[in-house]
Amino acid sequence: MIRFSKATQDMRASAIRELMGLATRSDMISFAGGMPGNSLFPVEELDSLYSRLSVEAKQTAFQYGPTQGYPPLLDSLGRYLQSLGLPMEGNGLIVTTGGLQAIYLTAKVMLDPKDVVVTEDPTFVGGIAAFRSHRAVLNGVPMDDDGIQMDLLEKTWKRLPSRPKLVYVIPNFHNPAGVQYSRERRLSLIGFLKKHPSVLLEDDAYHELYFDETDNETVRPIKALAGETIPVCYVGSFSKIFGPGMRLGWLLSPKAIHAQCELAKQSVDACSPTFTQVLADRFFREGYLSQYVKRIRPVYRRRAEAMLKGLSESMPETVTWTLPKGGFYVWVTLPKHTDATDILKASIERGAVFVVGKTFDPRGRRNHCFRLAFSHTPEDKIEQGVKIVAEAVRRFV
Amino acid sequence: MIRFSKATQDMRASAIRELMGLATRSDMISFAGGMPGNSLFPVEELDSLYSRLSVEAKQTAFQYGPTQGYPPLLDSLGRYLQSLGLPMEGNGLIVTTGGLQAIYLTAKVMLDPKDVVVTEDPTFVGGIAAFRSHRAVLNGVPMDDDGIQMDLLEKTWKRLPSRPKLVYVIPNFHNPAGVQYSRERRLSLIGFLKKHPSVLLEDDAYHELYFDETDNETVRPIKALAGETIPVCYVGSFSKIFGPGMRLGWLLSPKAIHAQCELAKQSVDACSPTFTQVLADRFFREGYLSQYVKRIRPVYRRRAEAMLKGLSESMPETVTWTLPKGGFYVWVTLPKHTDATDILKASIERGAVFVVGKTFDPRGRRNHCFRLAFSHTPEDKIEQGVKIVAEAVRRFV
Repeated sequence: MIRFSKATQDMRASAIRELMGLATRSDMISFAGGMPGNSLFPVEELDSLYSRLSVEAKQTAFQYGPTQGYPPLLDSLGRYLQSLGLPMEGNGLIVTTGGLQAIYLTAKVMLDPKDVVVTEDPTFVGGIAAFRSHRAVLNGVPMDDDGIQMDLLEKTWKRLPSRPKLVYVIPNFHNPAGVQYSRERRLSLIGFLKKHPSVLLEDDAYHELYFDETDNETVRPIKALAGETIPVCYVGSFSKIFGPGMRLGWLLSPKAIHAQCELAKQSVDACSPTFTQVLADRFFREGYLSQYVKRIRPVYRRRAEAMLKGLSESMPETVTWTLPKGGFYVWVTLPKHTDATDILKASIERGAVFVVGKTFDPRGRRNHCFRLAFSHTPEDKIEQGVKIVAEAVRRFV
Repeated sequence: MIRFSKATQDMRASAIRELMGLATRSDMISFAGGMPGNSLFPVEELDSLYSRLSVEAKQTAFQYGPTQGYPPLLDSLGRYLQSLGLPMEGNGLIVTTGGLQAIYLTAKVMLDPKDVVVTEDPTFVGGIAAFRSHRAVLNGVPMDDDGIQMDLLEKTWKRLPSRPKLVYVIPNFHNPAGVQYSRERRLSLIGFLKKHPSVLLEDDAYHELYFDETDNETVRPIKALAGETIPVCYVGSFSKIFGPGMRLGWLLSPKAIHAQCELAKQSVDACSPTFTQVLADRFFREGYLSQYVKRIRPVYRRRAEAMLKGLSESMPETVTWTLPKGGFYVWVTLPKHTDATDILKASIERGAVFVVGKTFDPRGRRNHCFRLAFSHTPEDKIEQGVKIVAEAVRRFV
């Protein structure tokens, strides 16, 4: 009797909910959720920040804030983004309710039904959900170890029914693929988009999570390299450098797009949570953020190493995986005839869980691959869990 | 060069941003923002709650939560809603990023371009924005002192191009009109919707803010009165009973709609802020919420009384206004030839600010009326401010 909107037909129950459930089961070793480990959160820093908030600051934190964001946070965030080499001139900054909302708002102001979006394949499940909920047509382009494959991008572009409104990429420590774009690939993509106009949506949620401190130059955003030559909407997130429960991200975008996104946000949730914006601003301003990421980088590196070591020791020879230089993920590719859903079932029986490949396929099909997240599991558990997954793989490979 | 979505053409720059700016100017007496006063927030209670959070609770607060909401909050909120007489059976509850997001999600899952929404006239500006951003056609129906006018609703219904997908109402302490629906009007509306099927979207953000404790029966939600006889999506908010900066609201809706809203939320922001959900849950659970609303009700009553007294003493005879029994607002109606924008300009020159009528008109036109919010201004300032507004009115009436 209730007639839903056409958009609901294009929304697809993702595996996320089910897997979030599995991820939090204490009897399961979880490589499922793309989340920091609970024990890594900066609780002491939070206590220290909270204890020094004035009554006035707390009152502000209780109150509505401007749609664009809490002004001191816009200020500290702006200085941080400038330090990454991002062009601030000609662009507007908005604090969003998580990085996902930055993607959602861009989709909302850009996409009509049947509009084309080019993504990497695989890509972030939240991005797929945001584009599909605007009834866009998604076209995935495979990656190699240096990023999106330019020849395949060119080929895809030629056979599209219309010029893509958006090109969505995750150049640093890709979710789910664990790949980092080389500098050359970043420049190639900029060159391509100069000739083939579209809006680049750059998702840099994992920017700060390089394993090796000497790698801090390799993460330079495409928007920083491109300057004003192509329109780039740059998405970031506090989820990996403070906490996902704060629900804070940002969008730095060309002024015309920025103005529409601000308007769109007034219809979506009016403003991002002031309470957590006040805390995030202090976290930045008092230098906790840079100390915190320095502390967690080696933790994630050790976890990645434990996972890679386990995979080398236990996986059959026909299975391959990416070698992340940062972030949360390893992407595992199986022989073509295998189905990751079978392997997941077998793995759950033995007590380890991960996310199957089709979750990240823009068309929701390809499934001879899966994502392992090492971010929220200590090394000894990783060792145990990888053995379980490898045993499950061996049953089908 | 950038082609925006068609939806952006239907989004309209609201006066909100400009007026939020004015509302926070310390040299201005503000009747603009629909917000609690900063000094009324429960800062001491927050300190007490925070000081008793365990490390584990804080870690949970930092983390992602389920899309539906933080389970303990869903539990305490569910018990609260049951105590209001709301039917829980057959319905699903979701914690939203503010009450506005509950409206937005309902719009997203229900509305295609050109779909019809019936609202009150005037109505909540955030509702207008949410419906318009889905390209809906809005039809406003005037109210009297008892709520939406049933004869005009019937007349409007007959001349609509298609059956309305949604009927959006604010039965308690209406924003902006300051009206409360009588029990009879609530029952009439239920009766009407039994004969004329649609989905009722009931916005009850001001439910707890009756001035007189004996009025706690008059606020009974339409959804509670209707039971299962008509489909009702019930929206609530923590903004007025805890703080807007927490960005928390809720949606209690029939299971089929609920499932789609949960899916839609996965594309919008994945989950509401866990950090503030943990705090809101404790605020409920430890009895602070009921103590807090008991403390602020008489404060708002005194502010309303000061405003009504000021209006009686200083407004010309041809000007009328509503007599709120709760909430934040008085709605002022001027003679038809006047333009509230002229009056606002004159009033700002003298140091008082409010929101003009057309902001709340679904068609954005009618402007011989304006909204005064008494919620965030102490009584002595209200007295001064009303005099300024009345002087400005006298220049044009």
